[in-house]
Formats: sequence, structure tokens, C-alpha cells
Amino acid sequence: MYILCSDLEGVFVPEIWINVAKHTGIDGLKLTTRDINDYDVLMKGRLDILRQHNLTIHVIQQVIANIKPLPGAVEFITWLRKRMELIVVSDTYMEFANPIMEKLGRPTLFCNSLTIDHLGNITDYNLRQPDGKRKVAEALLNLNFKVIAVGDSYNDINMLRKANTGILFRPPQNVVNDNPDLPVAGSYDELKKIISSKLEAETIA
Amino acid sequence: MYILCSDLEGVFVPEIWINVAKHTGIDGLKLTTRDINDYDVLMKGRLDILRQHNLTIHVIQQVIANIKPLPGAVEFITWLRKRMELIVVSDTYMEFANPIMEKLGRPTLFCNSLTIDHLGNITDYNLRQPDGKRKVAEALLNLNFKVIAVGDSYNDINMLRKANTGILFRPPQNVVNDNPDLPVAGSYDELKKIISSKLEAETIA
Repeated sequence: MYILCSDLEGVFVPEIWINVAKHTGIDGLKLTTRDINDYDVLMKGRLDILRQHNLTIHVIQQVIANIKPLPGAVEFITWLRKRMELIVVSDTYMEFANPIMEKLGRPTLFCNSLTIDHLGNITDYNLRQPDGKRKVAEALLNLNFKVIAVGDSYNDINMLRKANTGILFRPPQNVVNDNPDLPVAGSYDELKKIISSKLEAETIA
Repeated sequence: MYILCSDLEGVFVPEIWINVAKHTGIDGLKLTTRDINDYDVLMKGRLDILRQHNLTIHVIQQVIANIKPLPGAVEFITWLRKRMELIVVSDTYMEFANPIMEKLGRPTLFCNSLTIDHLGNITDYNLRQPDGKRKVAEALLNLNFKVIAVGDSYNDINMLRKANTGILFRPPQNVVNDNPDLPVAGSYDELKKIISSKLEAETIA
């Protein structure tokens, strides 16, 4: 029985932090896991910038409220969920994700959480566990699912490699260069084709 | 971070096989995991009865198409999913569940599958793995979730005992008698109260 684990930002919605950067005009917030391999370095940098500019969770939530799914994302999710279960596996935070997940039809989300003080300042971030995306793929394999994993960034690679099938979706060129053996889908239609071929192979087997 | 695993039949929808029994008038199909502890004995008995009466998957799917969520179930699920993720963990089959999950707002479902021949006869059933419900609770604990598990029957007990918090929902008296230490919720409101108390304890901690 197949299940799909997918990254969120870059696959179903635009990068949240890039939208925050645009909204606030702070270029330093434009960096993502596509640019910086070490997530801890990236997040500590982001929280420093928020502190320097006195930006609270409320500002970020305003930006997030206006984020729309990527064109075709909702249709793809509807198509997928008729065929297999979907777990969205993201390094985003519960405190960010709620309105986005609503727009996507509320697929299950495994993510992280923030520590926020009484004024709304984000004082820390709490990863559910180190290398969490890979561990989700591993847990689902242990539950005897066949796992298809989809992502676009460095922080997805361990999950993609742990899965039975790992697929890069619209990745930046540096991620492709570093992982030339992984299949690449440039559109939801291409993604559907790869997924359908796996399902058909299972039916024949 | 909390997550809830819940049984399906008896918690969110009526027992599917009892509805099949009513529809077909075959009393032997009324038995469920509430009555028979050994799932393999139960399922082999059901498949024998279907064969004897030439009942195909199509007949069962007709019955399932008319099954409605229990009163209050959809509202409870909506309430819950604003607070934590939900995984429905059921011994039902993919081939049965699709229209039911649609009516519940498509929470993620971990279940089993059937082997069906070209005439629609159900020739076998395939458990994803032995003791699958307990293993889902265990997998989520390994992903560093705090797990609340909800169920009504013998086949839920291992999951309820593996979770941080196991709750019986409207169980039959024999299940209560055999598990007198587990908390019991008789309504969705009582279930909400138990869940809310756990969430509040986490916020204070």
C-alpha cells in the first residue's frame, strides 16, 4: 500500500519566508533551505533578524494569511488523495501552518513548533526531532507502507533517499547538481505520471 | 506536540459490517471486534459468509455509500484538527473506506486492503502488518509526538495502552470490564474535555 510524504513550501505553497521578506522589505529573510544546507544556521539567522526589526508572530501570520497555494496544487492533492494517503512533512511551524493547511484541504501535517513570549516575539524554535523528515519516511516504511517522497530542497534529500521512491519537484539547479540520480518533476502532471507508474507497477506485481 | 490516533467504526461512523448484515438480512455478519477478540477468525468467517451468499464488493460498497457519520462526529473532527493532527487507524479496507473518509473531511487513514477477483468476489484480506494499530502509536511516539489514542473495541486496546493517553469511546460493557483502568468517554463532549485537559497540562508544563 502506497503513501506519499511531501514537503510543503516549494511543492504546494510558495516559500513562507520569501513572502515575509517581500512584505517587510528585509532581504536577509529571503534565504531558504534551498540556499543554506544547515537548518539551524538558517533559523537562528532568521530569529536574529526578527528580533533586530521587532517583528512579532502577528506580522508573520498576516503575511501567511495572504499566501495562496501554487496554481494546480489543490487539484493535485485532490487527485492524489483518491489514490493514496498524504502526509505533508515540513520544517515549518504549527503557528504558521494552520491557514495554509486549510486552503490545501487539511492534509495531515508533521512539522515543528515555536516558542513565543507574551508579546508575540518568537524567542526560539523547537524541532520535533533531528533529521525529522527522514524519520517520517522510516516510520512509514516500518508500518509496511511503500513510501513515495516529494521535495525540492536540501532538507528533503534524506527523506527522498529513505523512501522507496524519492522525487524532486521543481528543485533549484544546485540541488539537482548535488543529486543527479534523483528523478525530477517540473510540473504536477509530471509528478502524477511518476506516481501513476508506481501504482500500475504495484497492480501488475 | 500532540497527535491523535483514532479508530473509525464505532467512533466516527457506525460499524460497517453491522450495516451490511442489516442490508442483507444475514445475522452472521453482525459480529464485530466487539464480540470476537481474534480478528483473523472474525474476517475468515465474514469472507466465508460472503462466498456462501455470492455477495460481491459491489453490494458492500452500495451499503457503505449510504453510511453516515455518527451525529456530532464531523463537528468533533473539525474541533480536533484545529488543535492537533488526526490519524484514523482502522482495521477496515481501502476498498470500503473512500466514501466514508470523504464525509469526514478526509482525515488521513491507515488501514488494510482486500484481494478482489475480476468478478468482484472478495477472495482474501491483507493486513498491512500484525498488531498494526499498536505499531502506529509506537511509530508516532518515535517521531516525538505525544500520542492520544481513541477506540471502542478489543482491537484498539494495544494502541490505547501504547499511547501516552488511551481513551475508550462508547465501549461495550465487556471491553470496559476487561480494561477497568482506561478512561471512558460517553460523548464527543466528554472526549473533548479529556483532550483539552491534556493540551492545557502541556501549555502549563
